[in-house]
Amino acid sequence: MNINESLWKLREKVRDTSPLVHNITNYVVMNTTANALLAIGASPVMAHAEAEVQDMVQIASSLVINIGTLSPDWVNAMKLALKKANQLNIPVVLDPVGAGATPYRNQVLAELLSAGKFSVIRGNASEIMALVTTGNKTKGVDSTASSENAETAAKFLNKKYGSVICISGAIDYIISKDKLVKISNGHSLMSKVTGMGCTATALIGAFIGTGEDVFDSVVAATAMMGIAGELAAAVSKGPGSLQMNLLDKLHNMTKDEFIRTLRIECQ
Amino acid sequence: MNINESLWKLREKVRDTSPLVHNITNYVVMNTTANALLAIGASPVMAHAEAEVQDMVQIASSLVINIGTLSPDWVNAMKLALKKANQLNIPVVLDPVGAGATPYRNQVLAELLSAGKFSVIRGNASEIMALVTTGNKTKGVDSTASSENAETAAKFLNKKYGSVICISGAIDYIISKDKLVKISNGHSLMSKVTGMGCTATALIGAFIGTGEDVFDSVVAATAMMGIAGELAAAVSKGPGSLQMNLLDKLHNMTKDEFIRTLRIECQ
Amino acid sequence: MNINESLWKLREKVRDTSPLVHNITNYVVMNTTANALLAIGASPVMAHAEAEVQDMVQIASSLVINIGTLSPDWVNAMKLALKKANQLNIPVVLDPVGAGATPYRNQVLAELLSAGKFSVIRGNASEIMALVTTGNKTKGVDSTASSENAETAAKFLNKKYGSVICISGAIDYIISKDKLVKISNGHSLMSKVTGMGCTATALIGAFIGTGEDVFDSVVAATAMMGIAGELAAAVSKGPGSLQMNLLDKLHNMTKDEFIRTLRIECQ
Repeated sequence: MNINESLWKLREKVRDTSPLVHNITNYVVMNTTANALLAIGASPVMAHAEAEVQDMVQIASSLVINIGTLSPDWVNAMKLALKKANQLNIPVVLDPVGAGATPYRNQVLAELLSAGKFSVIRGNASEIMALVTTGNKTKGVDSTASSENAETAAKFLNKKYGSVICISGAIDYIISKDKLVKISNGHSLMSKVTGMGCTATALIGAFIGTGEDVFDSVVAATAMMGIAGELAAAVSKGPGSLQMNLLDKLHNMTKDEFIRTLRIECQ
Repeated sequence: MNINESLWKLREKVRDTSPLVHNITNYVVMNTTANALLAIGASPVMAHAEAEVQDMVQIASSLVINIGTLSPDWVNAMKLALKKANQLNIPVVLDPVGAGATPYRNQVLAELLSAGKFSVIRGNASEIMALVTTGNKTKGVDSTASSENAETAAKFLNKKYGSVICISGAIDYIISKDKLVKISNGHSLMSKVTGMGCTATALIGAFIGTGEDVFDSVVAATAMMGIAGELAAAVSKGPGSLQMNLLDKLHNMTKDEFIRTLRIECQ
Repeated sequence: MNINESLWKLREKVRDTSPLVHNITNYVVMNTTANALLAIGASPVMAHAEAEVQDMVQIASSLVINIGTLSPDWVNAMKLALKKANQLNIPVVLDPVGAGATPYRNQVLAELLSAGKFSVIRGNASEIMALVTTGNKTKGVDSTASSENAETAAKFLNKKYGSVICISGAIDYIISKDKLVKISNGHSLMSKVTGMGCTATALIGAFIGTGEDVFDSVVAATAMMGIAGELAAAVSKGPGSLQMNLLDKLHNMTKDEFIRTLRIECQ
């Protein structure tokens, strides 16, 4: 079985096992990511009350923490859920939305990263690079950052936190201690739809919720997102129809479409 | 006038009177349910601040309480709005999202059910069955629950709280003291779109806001939702297009489509 | 260069400069307005924590304050962001959603209007008329209000607060001390999609974020919204497809479409 076939197997496992993904995420994308998770056959649940996040996460297959529209109560809930997930060996993925944009965002990220362990961290190049300094003090966002520039930052973060790092961009990078995979699917129109990065993170949540190898799961989720976006963009007139077609394609993508569209490089 | 015709009359009354539906609902579906209410000709308003919910509900035709993403402040607002609605004889529908999933959710449901009266409770079979025990202690969600199994639970809840109970599923059940109606419209693809249950609840909010008989209003709203979903699914490629086509169909459904698509059984 | 050409120039400047628009807005429309801003080439950011709004607004080109689903913490954040924006001469647009509906909403509006200066206020006729009295006491919403009736209210508000006033309706009015522009684009189906007014406000945020003349920017944003809605409605079957087609058209509208569709009257 080649790499493309084995990644498709992981996609099928998501549909067959329907992992429950507990999302503590931002207001902007809740509907979008819940729909994306349903489209691939996973089960989303959104819950953020401090009084219930520990109970919710313990019935979940994975936890997604996304700081897009954070506030103090939510941050407390994120920490509680993170610690409980760590205790129970439930994998957690972090989306550091807007890392570097404000001191508060950086402070919260530093607190989260010291409060528990993340199996995966996914962001764009600017966010991943900003994370390197959040343990200390922010130096702001480098909006011209490319995935290539962020590769060194990703290796540093992997070494420091033990997380698989996923950098989204024209080329996506998935990086662990001794592995590097590049995926060059997707379409530029995706940058005109809100929550595409957050959706990639949610899909990672579903794939790591299967209990399969974390690195492979991140690769498969990233491939799925890129291919769905690329195929959807090919039949879309703009960002509105792309958003709709992406959900359709996450749902009805065939093995053949996945295998022949995937552009992957493993190092 | 037969049953189908009389239900369509209720649908026309929603469009003619445009009831103002006050929603205290979850973040995931706010956009979806506001759009569904507008599509059928009702007027949605979303407001959750303790400082204004009593003033908002008193200008509304009905109140929707949905606990999908609850937190303490919102629960307080729900209770205030519920009590004010009861005082003014404004009908209230409860959507017990995730009943049984966490102790906090069950506790909140028990508090709400003792704080006031709900004209209608709508949930899936698992949620309706979980509600039976929330007055005492949770026994968790039975995810394999079917509408048939929940029928006994619904009768118990109707007797205890006086509410019309609506169980959503492949077959929808609407139950009161001496009536039982089954509707078998809809499509399995609807389960791959987030907020379909919440949308059904919102539509019930609009229909009971007309001032017509509550049981008949719940039947009409449930029929409308199932038929719109079924007709939308027939022209959809996946969950993304279903979401769009459902809103279109809620808006442009003809009397003829309603009458000939409805599959209803009255006992 | 005629008026239509000069307005299109402003639209091009939005795409060329991609202003960062900081939104403190309501839960219902966050996804919709973020997508609309991306579709026209602007960069949205949503952030509401008191701990970060001052830092966020200082890297933004403009600030949007929308009270659709307000609560005390959010109101505090709005005031902090407003004051910081005023200090830094960053333009601010206010959307007084539901002005007149509840005493709390009116009180918050009075507080915001005395806490700082808004470059623009945009609402429907009822909201604009309600704002006249919020400095004192509410007299409720006049739901039958037309843009024509609100013209006097707009002139009063412009004189009192110095803001450009935009009244949305079948005919949109843009009013300053000595200017009045009427735009009669759009389509009645837009009233069946939630957040169309909020989207108009967000687009105004993008256009005033270019640093060009505020009045002209409001006219251009209002024209863009009306034309996109009108062209989208012409190819839509209902409110679901209109929502999608509007985003597509905001993205792919050509200069020719803009010039020949615009119906504008300057006094």
